[in-house]
Amino acid sequence: MRRITIIGLGLIGGSIALSLKQAGLGDIELVGYTRSSETAIKALKRGAVDKIEDNLVSAVDKAEIVVLATPVMAMKEILEKMGPHLSHSCIVTDAASTKVKVMEWAEKYLPSGIKFIGGHPMAGKELSGIEAAEADLFKGCTYCIVQGEDTSSEEIKVITDLVKYLGANPFFITASEHDNFVAGISHLPLIISSSLVMSTTQSPYWQDMSVLAAGGYRDVTRLASQHPVMNRDICLTNQKNILKWIDEFTKELNRFRQLVIDGDQALDKAFIQAQQARHKWIEEHDKGD
Amino acid sequence: MRRITIIGLGLIGGSIALSLKQAGLGDIELVGYTRSSETAIKALKRGAVDKIEDNLVSAVDKAEIVVLATPVMAMKEILEKMGPHLSHSCIVTDAASTKVKVMEWAEKYLPSGIKFIGGHPMAGKELSGIEAAEADLFKGCTYCIVQGEDTSSEEIKVITDLVKYLGANPFFITASEHDNFVAGISHLPLIISSSLVMSTTQSPYWQDMSVLAAGGYRDVTRLASQHPVMNRDICLTNQKNILKWIDEFTKELNRFRQLVIDGDQALDKAFIQAQQARHKWIEEHDKGD
Repeated sequence: MRRITIIGLGLIGGSIALSLKQAGLGDIELVGYTRSSETAIKALKRGAVDKIEDNLVSAVDKAEIVVLATPVMAMKEILEKMGPHLSHSCIVTDAASTKVKVMEWAEKYLPSGIKFIGGHPMAGKELSGIEAAEADLFKGCTYCIVQGEDTSSEEIKVITDLVKYLGANPFFITASEHDNFVAGISHLPLIISSSLVMSTTQSPYWQDMSVLAAGGYRDVTRLASQHPVMNRDICLTNQKNILKWIDEFTKELNRFRQLVIDGDQALDKAFIQAQQARHKWIEEHDKGD
Repeated sequence: MRRITIIGLGLIGGSIALSLKQAGLGDIELVGYTRSSETAIKALKRGAVDKIEDNLVSAVDKAEIVVLATPVMAMKEILEKMGPHLSHSCIVTDAASTKVKVMEWAEKYLPSGIKFIGGHPMAGKELSGIEAAEADLFKGCTYCIVQGEDTSSEEIKVITDLVKYLGANPFFITASEHDNFVAGISHLPLIISSSLVMSTTQSPYWQDMSVLAAGGYRDVTRLASQHPVMNRDICLTNQKNILKWIDEFTKELNRFRQLVIDGDQALDKAFIQAQQARHKWIEEHDKGD
């Protein structure tokens, strides 16, 4: 029996497991690693995995593929610990929100011969944990794939096939491009959402304001509900890009501030431009709404 | 036959009309005013109103209630033009996103004796026009009511009843409080959304970034898709509060920026705080998610 091991059974790991189960992989044994007995029970109850291991060495034993789905910072230690226990033909991948650091750690801690191919599904939701996991979470999403050093096309194909089983669309990208781009479209929005929550809820008028706040506020603040440990790890492993994007955004916010002061036709134009640019994105990428 | 006239049949005016129709108001004639023949045809086709008028004076003739549902800046001229033609017992209300200016214009332009009671449904969506209108748009939403000068409790009751027919919850507030609070929970988020769209879509890497952008980006940028004229009018009539809230937000964004630089436990704490504050709001006000 061939074995795939998923390390971490939260929203992403749990959804990968459920999705692979749904795809029906035949004689593959799906092993989940978690140290939380609560998560273990829930994962088994949902039929996400065939077996739970709370020991990392046993979990990766004889695995053909290992998928890391923990918060980014935890991956460093996991790579170091499990490295010596991987079978020599094992391919390791991950689902972290940042890629440069993870690729560095894989290069440093995995024994030579073990191939690492980075991954990042561009899907998710603000809820976390196995209870929020869904088999269809990755359906139609872009799934970033970062080739590791010396990976062959056969090895890449193993991970690309896995991504296709999830219903996602493989997108090849370098680690540094990935971290720059997601800082703009994902990490900056997270910082903005969180800053908006803090600046409004700390107001002395929040009690009344909270009654008025509705769908617009809910949507713009949604990312602030993401898992705090994941959020922190994103910042710790993508600091430079995030700071650069905060500064880009601040420039634009200041420009809007001045437009509000001037109150002339340039203000009209700015709102029209923003509406059109977003519309173009929605249309071209079929993002619903 | 008694008459209610709705001025402007876009998302909000159209939804008010559809909602009143659905409530079944008996012997009330619902008149819609629009100068767009396209909107007129669609409104009649959807059964939103009994009659369309493209002449303002005829539209408000004999109306017991007039509801203004145009972008804010257009209301000034409409109040001035229709004032002399309102029947002496008419009550005028509006659905604009800002209240101080509208209340001032009503005071200035409506003949003495005509009562104005401001309104603002805290509901909407990023789409606009009669085609986006829904009978259930206001169901369960908070509906701000701002008492005009010398309005009696009977007159307030007329508008409160109207709001209840829409399925909304009346919330009494002063015009200046309203404009301050909505600047924080609605207008600031709009400026943030629009600034985020501009800072990302203008990047030389946008073509690749746009493939990676997913649900998080979609939600945080949603308000940028609101109607540009409405957005501009909001800024023109609530400038001071919006600037104040942009500055509050900028302080918090700079604090987060520093937390990202420091990368210590305060960063964890900030994300936990933001998550909890948002969660509290979602729970207390049953905002789904």
